[in-house]
Amino acid sequence: MSSIVVVGSVAYDAVETPFGSRERMLGGAATHFSLAAGFFVGVHLIGVVGRDFSEQDEALLRARGINLEGLERVAGGDTFFWKARYGYDLNDCRTLDTRLNVFSEFDPKLTAGARMAPFLFLANIRPDLQLAVLRQMDAPRLVALDTMNYWIEGSKSQLLETIAHVDMLIINDAEVRQLTGEPNLLRASRAIFEMGPQRLVIKRGEYGAAMFGPAGFFAVPGLPLDAVVDPTGAGDTFAGGFLGYLATTANGSDESSFRRAMIYGSVMASFNVEAFGCERLLTLQREDVRQRFREFKDLVHFELEEIDRLIPRYVEEFAR
Amino acid sequence: MSSIVVVGSVAYDAVETPFGSRERMLGGAATHFSLAAGFFVGVHLIGVVGRDFSEQDEALLRARGINLEGLERVAGGDTFFWKARYGYDLNDCRTLDTRLNVFSEFDPKLTAGARMAPFLFLANIRPDLQLAVLRQMDAPRLVALDTMNYWIEGSKSQLLETIAHVDMLIINDAEVRQLTGEPNLLRASRAIFEMGPQRLVIKRGEYGAAMFGPAGFFAVPGLPLDAVVDPTGAGDTFAGGFLGYLATTANGSDESSFRRAMIYGSVMASFNVEAFGCERLLTLQREDVRQRFREFKDLVHFELEEIDRLIPRYVEEFAR
Repeated sequence: MSSIVVVGSVAYDAVETPFGSRERMLGGAATHFSLAAGFFVGVHLIGVVGRDFSEQDEALLRARGINLEGLERVAGGDTFFWKARYGYDLNDCRTLDTRLNVFSEFDPKLTAGARMAPFLFLANIRPDLQLAVLRQMDAPRLVALDTMNYWIEGSKSQLLETIAHVDMLIINDAEVRQLTGEPNLLRASRAIFEMGPQRLVIKRGEYGAAMFGPAGFFAVPGLPLDAVVDPTGAGDTFAGGFLGYLATTANGSDESSFRRAMIYGSVMASFNVEAFGCERLLTLQREDVRQRFREFKDLVHFELEEIDRLIPRYVEEFAR
Repeated sequence: MSSIVVVGSVAYDAVETPFGSRERMLGGAATHFSLAAGFFVGVHLIGVVGRDFSEQDEALLRARGINLEGLERVAGGDTFFWKARYGYDLNDCRTLDTRLNVFSEFDPKLTAGARMAPFLFLANIRPDLQLAVLRQMDAPRLVALDTMNYWIEGSKSQLLETIAHVDMLIINDAEVRQLTGEPNLLRASRAIFEMGPQRLVIKRGEYGAAMFGPAGFFAVPGLPLDAVVDPTGAGDTFAGGFLGYLATTANGSDESSFRRAMIYGSVMASFNVEAFGCERLLTLQREDVRQRFREFKDLVHFELEEIDRLIPRYVEEFAR
């Protein structure tokens, strides 16, 4: 059966928004990714946690078919902790505290089962660790990478070396521009292709997502939601829905599969923001996914019409 | 024959971008709107210019079927002048000079022909003038309004009085949020409906456009372009394409017509930004419009697929 390996953070998050707060909730890129991808396929989670990581959270991940053989437990430290406050406009996020804890010594090691997986997602961690993980894989069919401004600024050459070995980037608008130094996205996508990847997926928050690939450009708008409660983990949930769906397809390199993957990514991310942390994903049913997929189809649907029936370009008789 | 009235600025613009500059080019909201809408239907332009307004520019508008009976000429002053500089990122625009000139005494008067038109676009001018124009109309089928932060801050009560009489707003994300005090767009759209309009069209620049109406939500992403030279007038060009197309339809209140209007608006705006000021619109051919309409269809196209064929939600046998 097809499966995905994800390497990234497993964390406890403290989050305040105008709609409520959580003092300590399960989070981290690898967690959000796994819960979304696990809806579609088996996932090997490669990460590290500390002595404070609860039995309950571990059981919760296991119960969803997430393989935790590669989740290292360090007895001498605590799990990565992140604290943030969102404003009334949820685009406005302020980090109040970041404690790397056991994550600072993270040295990812893949299990034998993980090495054989056909899909790999390198969540946002140090670029040399991303490359070290990639080199442990036998022969992945598709490798996708996320990163952030911190690595683009501080570890550019290492990051470029890693990017040269991946098939696809999943990053945001600002990261695309910063990485390439090119504000025009069409030209920036060409610069990314020259770095190695054949495909660029751009996360745009409330504006949806865009994709540049061999078959051209595709985009999906964001779905306006009544209750946007907490955007934490939306990007990794998007990536999980995207790659999770793709891993179920017989041929992951087919353009129509990639386009549907964009929609499944958007669907999963749209659910993620409706509640704190992972809470919405934990109650999600297949029928919810099916219905929202159709909502996305409807929200971009329009019919072609021949412009020939329109009146001539400039209506001479109307001129004076 | 169906026609549209537009009331708004006719101006000379001086623009600098990293790709070049123009010291004095024909501009203004009513001009950009008219050139886009004039591609589809007859347009009555209601505005004011000064003694410096050239014969050549007047002839250029006339040649495109734009009715200038309502374009007042003031001998004692100059045409509205605007000067701005765009950064390498074209979202970054700095106004260097604004001279209202004859526009400061603008007292729009509709011609007999204009009063009978079925469509009215109130471009961004003082809200009491917008209402005065609206009251001169006989029985318009559809009235759309644009505005800006300046009026939302300084003339809110007058603006709300005007908005109560219009069918549709065509504004940007920030204006929607500022006008309603609601950062969530879905809830903001409901607040707009309570003000009077039945439809809200949101211009999002490079992210495209979104529409809230009686039949729900619709959105179209932006088309990434190789050469984005000058975004001046893109919003008014969008509105011109939108209402111009709508005016050609037998029934402007049909949802599928409104959705296609969103695409025609996006198509015209995408051309507008490819050259300075109105330059691209002046060379545009019907075949260009047809081709780009199809590009928009393709860029959002994906096929439905039954999620039922996907493997069960969480793969128990994969869990350890």
